[in-house]
Amino acid sequence: MSKKLGRSTIEMENAPVIRASATVVGKKEGEGPLKEEFDLINNDTSFSQETWEKAESEMLREAVQTALQKASLNSSDVEFIFAGDLLNQCIGATYGLREFQIPFIGMYGACSTMAESLAMASIFVDNGLASNAVAVTSSHFCSAERQFRFPLEYGGQRPPTAQWTATASGAAIVGTEEVSGMNVYVRSVCMGTIQDLGITDANNMGAAMAPAAAWTIKTFLEDTKTKPSDYDLILTGDLGQVGRDLLLELLLKDNISISEQHDDCGLILYDRESQDVHAGGSGCGCSASVLCSQILRRMRAGELNEVLFMATGALMSPTSVQQGESIPGIAHLIHLSTRKGGN
Amino acid sequence: MSKKLGRSTIEMENAPVIRASATVVGKKEGEGPLKEEFDLINNDTSFSQETWEKAESEMLREAVQTALQKASLNSSDVEFIFAGDLLNQCIGATYGLREFQIPFIGMYGACSTMAESLAMASIFVDNGLASNAVAVTSSHFCSAERQFRFPLEYGGQRPPTAQWTATASGAAIVGTEEVSGMNVYVRSVCMGTIQDLGITDANNMGAAMAPAAAWTIKTFLEDTKTKPSDYDLILTGDLGQVGRDLLLELLLKDNISISEQHDDCGLILYDRESQDVHAGGSGCGCSASVLCSQILRRMRAGELNEVLFMATGALMSPTSVQQGESIPGIAHLIHLSTRKGGN
Repeated sequence: MSKKLGRSTIEMENAPVIRASATVVGKKEGEGPLKEEFDLINNDTSFSQETWEKAESEMLREAVQTALQKASLNSSDVEFIFAGDLLNQCIGATYGLREFQIPFIGMYGACSTMAESLAMASIFVDNGLASNAVAVTSSHFCSAERQFRFPLEYGGQRPPTAQWTATASGAAIVGTEEVSGMNVYVRSVCMGTIQDLGITDANNMGAAMAPAAAWTIKTFLEDTKTKPSDYDLILTGDLGQVGRDLLLELLLKDNISISEQHDDCGLILYDRESQDVHAGGSGCGCSASVLCSQILRRMRAGELNEVLFMATGALMSPTSVQQGESIPGIAHLIHLSTRKGGN
Repeated sequence: MSKKLGRSTIEMENAPVIRASATVVGKKEGEGPLKEEFDLINNDTSFSQETWEKAESEMLREAVQTALQKASLNSSDVEFIFAGDLLNQCIGATYGLREFQIPFIGMYGACSTMAESLAMASIFVDNGLASNAVAVTSSHFCSAERQFRFPLEYGGQRPPTAQWTATASGAAIVGTEEVSGMNVYVRSVCMGTIQDLGITDANNMGAAMAPAAAWTIKTFLEDTKTKPSDYDLILTGDLGQVGRDLLLELLLKDNISISEQHDDCGLILYDRESQDVHAGGSGCGCSASVLCSQILRRMRAGELNEVLFMATGALMSPTSVQQGESIPGIAHLIHLSTRKGGN
């Protein structure tokens, strides 16, 4: 049975295991530094569908299917699936998951969705409500671009602070049963509060989300009485370069330095020199695909033992921004470890 | 500690209590049959805001604030809040909840959100992860109309199968501590799977959602080995007249008759004769406001003892409908009882 710790942290008792994970990505992501890490790379980003939205659903569906195959599970072996995405009314997830007939709990956390879903799946498994639960999310550059910004055909210019929405999906299966070899356990989760420091520039999401990331890491360290050096990696979702710098600065005001442990999925997914992604990658699929490929692989290989995965979300819509609202952010955190218990 | 029962039901062990509930509605809802039941009625539906979207956020904020006041709780007494709504990127909830600084878990279940959020809040309380958790959702006729259909100024005609999106918000606080007088307990929850029988008419949401409702009620009865006559009321969220008829018909094929116990929030909220709402009310706020006002009041008064509250959601978007997709539905169920245990 999980235990509440301090303000916002939930500690797992039975250390749920990441039984398998899978990633499906688009062409650009498949040309980046992680190209050897993904399960499937679609070379025209359409996933053989007629529209970008259907392409996103298909990509998410393939990620779940691949994860099930890697874990040698049927969809009927999974009790609950937690999922969401950036598309209006979360149609990436709802249409992508339709065929599986797994009880579905829809989430919305913008780009924090992978951490949010993984947290809920872990809580369900740890409390005996599921022996297997899936967490999955996605984003697609083309569906996001026309929904949040301009149709691709418009060819709008992007400022240096802008980030590149990843065409990617990542799925993870959390379960009770250990796998052979090194296991990755979910040790605790920390759920964020909404933070809003008044950023109104929708082309600077990293800055809008950094205060939420600072709140969550600070709260988690307090709740667990741990320090940054207890972790090998503190990984944010998609702050990009601008948001990362701001996060480090905000934490330093509270005398917390994470610069040695910190990295950001938005800075890992692409080669910023050659791939023209400006401040870095973004989108639900950015952190999901980096976590579910390289990070979990490196943990299983014993290269990383204690990882804090913290995905951040900007809780705005094009409508709220047009109406002059500032951009609230949120960050949820997952403590992953190759050790089942103790410190 | 909650217990998984059968395919998709989760039984509470400690019978979490609904400590308080609150409803805030618009003018039309305040002129309907439930006008004496609501906590706040806003007479111009703008909630003193400049836009319909901000009005919806303000309405949701007021519902949470009123529920907290009724339970004599501060926001710092609430460990987690589960919320979502119909607006793109759920901005009704995110902007409405920003000021409370309660750890926030964003949900998306379309019009099933009240049941989905209440299920998650109950699971958290039952497993000792929160002593108080809030479930809240909202919908606003004007923000929904322009997002899903046409701007109000267009004056589009509505077919007889169309439903009327309620301007309403309902919030419920689930907790461990009983209140004075009659208590309402959450006894179990049943999470739905996505059902899609191929309906493509976005003006006939009731029909699109009915198969999901049928799946969930059937699964719940099987999982709990109970029958419709064990309940005083089986309440769907917003099927309206067309969806209700279809639900009864679908269940009869499985030899399940709920016609004596069944009612629908979409048929309770308005006077269909005089209020011109066609097939009935809809929107996340429809079932939330009916549950959190009349239904819980009648339970506390001992008029109803065993209630199944099942909210249904249509998991489409205007984009998916325009692209020719059919409309998947989902339904989540909450078993509420004035009895703490036993049958």
